[in-house]
Amino acid sequence: MEAEGAVGLSEAGDGSPLSGDAASDDGDTVVGVSYGMDAGDMDAAARKAFITEMPSSSGQPGQGKKIGHRGVDASGETTYKKTTSSALKGAIQLGIGYTVGNLSSKPERDVLMQDFYVVESIFFPSEGSNLTPAHHFPDFRFKTYAPVAFRYFRELFGIRPDDYLYSLCNEPLIELSNPGASGSVFYLTRDDEFIIKTVMHKEAEFLQKLLPGYYMNLNQNPRTLLPKFFGLYCVQSGGKNIRVVVMNNVLPRVVRMHLKYDLKGSTYKRRASKKEREKARPTFKDLDFMQNLLEGLMLDQDTYNALVKTLQRDCLVLESFKIMDYSLLLGVHNMDQAERERQMEGSQGESDEKRPVAQQKALYSTAMESIQGGGGLRGEHRHRRHVSQRGCGKRAE
Amino acid sequence: MEAEGAVGLSEAGDGSPLSGDAASDDGDTVVGVSYGMDAGDMDAAARKAFITEMPSSSGQPGQGKKIGHRGVDASGETTYKKTTSSALKGAIQLGIGYTVGNLSSKPERDVLMQDFYVVESIFFPSEGSNLTPAHHFPDFRFKTYAPVAFRYFRELFGIRPDDYLYSLCNEPLIELSNPGASGSVFYLTRDDEFIIKTVMHKEAEFLQKLLPGYYMNLNQNPRTLLPKFFGLYCVQSGGKNIRVVVMNNVLPRVVRMHLKYDLKGSTYKRRASKKEREKARPTFKDLDFMQNLLEGLMLDQDTYNALVKTLQRDCLVLESFKIMDYSLLLGVHNMDQAERERQMEGSQGESDEKRPVAQQKALYSTAMESIQGGGGLRGEHRHRRHVSQRGCGKRAE
Repeated sequence: MEAEGAVGLSEAGDGSPLSGDAASDDGDTVVGVSYGMDAGDMDAAARKAFITEMPSSSGQPGQGKKIGHRGVDASGETTYKKTTSSALKGAIQLGIGYTVGNLSSKPERDVLMQDFYVVESIFFPSEGSNLTPAHHFPDFRFKTYAPVAFRYFRELFGIRPDDYLYSLCNEPLIELSNPGASGSVFYLTRDDEFIIKTVMHKEAEFLQKLLPGYYMNLNQNPRTLLPKFFGLYCVQSGGKNIRVVVMNNVLPRVVRMHLKYDLKGSTYKRRASKKEREKARPTFKDLDFMQNLLEGLMLDQDTYNALVKTLQRDCLVLESFKIMDYSLLLGVHNMDQAERERQMEGSQGESDEKRPVAQQKALYSTAMESIQGGGGLRGEHRHRRHVSQRGCGKRAE
Repeated sequence: MEAEGAVGLSEAGDGSPLSGDAASDDGDTVVGVSYGMDAGDMDAAARKAFITEMPSSSGQPGQGKKIGHRGVDASGETTYKKTTSSALKGAIQLGIGYTVGNLSSKPERDVLMQDFYVVESIFFPSEGSNLTPAHHFPDFRFKTYAPVAFRYFRELFGIRPDDYLYSLCNEPLIELSNPGASGSVFYLTRDDEFIIKTVMHKEAEFLQKLLPGYYMNLNQNPRTLLPKFFGLYCVQSGGKNIRVVVMNNVLPRVVRMHLKYDLKGSTYKRRASKKEREKARPTFKDLDFMQNLLEGLMLDQDTYNALVKTLQRDCLVLESFKIMDYSLLLGVHNMDQAERERQMEGSQGESDEKRPVAQQKALYSTAMESIQGGGGLRGEHRHRRHVSQRGCGKRAE
């Protein structure tokens, strides 16, 4: 299998310009499926936005605007259902801290069908209780959906309970300034690994229903590019329910993406807007891809086959859940350009190219290697390839 | 881990008598969970017999008696819901032949949640049709439950479609003469691999509901001793529905069991009846086990640990489905006794002890080796160990 695919892996020494050449040898590639946030064609009755809509690339910092449940209070702080972002973050961190700790005291066991329908609930009065610490936020109740099932998923994804706890609870959560057009609030963990997103009641309900099928897909299709769900929670406070989902961060900053595409396999209105194209790092669409990358992207044969097979299996699952309007998020990291950038940025300029580009960890994003499974990639570090699926889309009834 | 458990594997050269010594070195062991057919404590409202009741060891050939739907016609042939056994066998063979063949033309794909709820249906007029051959039985309709899911299960169990077809459709089915007390009819394939059993509507419905959980257990606990279900079908004829399930044959004749126990972990009325004890190969119960095998059975440490872990996991699944009153079927094959028997039966008397005892295949029963997983057993052939779980029990609401 060293045929044309292998060409995609040869190490080009020259600093070829990026544009049409992103397809070539030395570009790292990130591929993923993301929710294409075409809020305009939203039809509430027939479709609903799926859980995995990502921060809108065209979004603006949300000051002053109220979109859906997301608003801004007098002090300029983001609110969600009138709960301040700081109170929400605090509740999430206290709640996850409790539920993960609580779970670790229970022995590991197989996941049963019933586990998908369990909801665990714990009350956090601000003055504290036997089980919970005192805090400075209003009283709240924290609910954990399907704790044992999500523990199993986290284990499958290789996330140790301590790491999950540490990333989510021991470091401040960073609110994203370009939230989605749906009115969700997004938080990122400081280590860039996890995204927390507020979801609507219907979305949380849908994710719960989806869990057995999600389980089945993970088992049969472990290289799936579908989003990685790590937890589903609800903060109840002041008569409001705020549901959040914890997911993997598809494009951790640690690998700079020189080109990003949101691909739907359609050519209808699939060109990035003028505004988007003016950005430093725009997310292009299908028509741009066809125009910029005339020869497409070259992958070695094994990787190509594995990727296509994985996409087919993922699409079957999405179809079975009547989820549509998802897209493939594709990121291209150009090794030569990265090297030039490093030099221009006055880095130490180490010439040892074998050294991994990234010092930070990016554990839970899906690298190309894991798509392809049993190796076949040469020069793993140099040709670091990320393939992640970050969203699903809307749902057609 | 060569401790006491290893003793259970040492090859004793002497022909020690069986009785209390079954526990010792040279006895092969068969363990399984079977449905304990205590028809007496049946309480239709609160419990229901589960699908996996096995041919009653105390049953008599059913001539003349009508039990449940099972009867005997004027010619002495068994009937089920007034359908003759020969017509039922014919319909099953035609139906399975069609459905497996039909399935093999469809490409393999992942099992989806929906697949558990699919029922495929095909009409077999006696004069034949475009799709079905002519036959000598009354017209019937054949339904296949969850065809894609069961295909996946068969694949997990290592059953190739051709083998399944051949065993079930190309050789005559043998009706068992000692059917269960519940009124089921049992057929065995000639190669001794598969058992076909009629099940009641409620049982079939229950098995269908159980499939997602069954799937989960097979994935997480692949060494499970729970019954292997290979297919669920329904023959509709003359306004009657006859549902049958295809399962593994837990105790294929190929390995003669010198001792059999049906164990529930209870001592209440758990002694084999006088009538049972008078048989050549009785199935004993808990109290007999305690009396006959004072030191219990010796297993090597690894096998013991793996077996206990598997039983715990299986019990968790049974409990989660509110199934109770199941039992562990334990068979002991004594190597020395088998050798003496072979010599007495005037076989060639080959002294090559490395030769497998069995020439026939017994592919789909669960051998001890598969419980223990990663080896650790020495002298595999000589110490052939079978561990199978053949039933579940009743269901408590």
